[in-house]
Amino acid sequence: MTSEARFADAALRTWKLYLDRSTKFLDNLSDEQLLVPIAPGKNTLLYIYGHLAAVHDGIFPLLGLGERLHPEYDAPFLKNADGAVEHSVTPQDLRAAWNEIHDKLWSAFTGLTAEQWLERHTAVSPEAFEKEPHRNRYSVLLNRLGHATYHLGQVVLVKSKE
Amino acid sequence: MTSEARFADAALRTWKLYLDRSTKFLDNLSDEQLLVPIAPGKNTLLYIYGHLAAVHDGIFPLLGLGERLHPEYDAPFLKNADGAVEHSVTPQDLRAAWNEIHDKLWSAFTGLTAEQWLERHTAVSPEAFEKEPHRNRYSVLLNRLGHATYHLGQVVLVKSKE
Repeated sequence: MTSEARFADAALRTWKLYLDRSTKFLDNLSDEQLLVPIAPGKNTLLYIYGHLAAVHDGIFPLLGLGERLHPEYDAPFLKNADGAVEHSVTPQDLRAAWNEIHDKLWSAFTGLTAEQWLERHTAVSPEAFEKEPHRNRYSVLLNRLGHATYHLGQVVLVKSKE
Repeated sequence: MTSEARFADAALRTWKLYLDRSTKFLDNLSDEQLLVPIAPGKNTLLYIYGHLAAVHDGIFPLLGLGERLHPEYDAPFLKNADGAVEHSVTPQDLRAAWNEIHDKLWSAFTGLTAEQWLERHTAVSPEAFEKEPHRNRYSVLLNRLGHATYHLGQVVLVKSKE
């Protein structure tokens, strides 16, 4: 493995570690628990997991890895506050979408070479990337890792059913 | 900048982004707020920030970057639950230690070359590292980043005073 590949590998391992932990926690929550706010007046677990699903689904086009799988998650879980718009996403729907998005994302992630991780993401123009080469795919991965664990820290405040 | 250096740079930028956010949030908390649990029966903010300070202080010896600055933080904030052992750390002490640890850590981090980030950390033996080269300094950085944002997600549930 080259040095570049070791760096890419390190982030993928950390992503997998924390995302697997998030999935395991979700699997141990009942459907009823998903509908409870994490603290009085705060977001429900369904909203937080839906929010993470929407953000992670957005990684596909952002990294040039394909189309969104669930663009319908944006309105209820990303662009609006919890409960602000009506939606028909059930806990069962969310669980299926969560697994679908993360399985496919993992396949896409592991298919990239180290060099491809350092290429620009689609939200930065080739001209801007010339000046700011740190706006690459890898930086998106690390940022989304920090975002995912930020919310994982919140969901674990609610006791799982095990 | 070499490709290796770009990878190291990406993690340092992400570390700085989230740690600066944590520091800013801490700066906006009153001393009284630091003593309030984040949710009924949960940890206080003083404990969570003290816990992060202790873990981050532990990065110095773990990465071979020097001695601990505040080993006295381990008993009250790392090895025991909130309130389980008496300690004399005041909000003022914590704020000073937090800044001291993170300032010094940042200097140490930015002094490492990309190659040094891929070297083993001190909790893995040279023999084990031969077989598991992913147990390097860089993996510790990414793991601690995930851990720090995990707790940042919790502290922000408490309204800051601004």
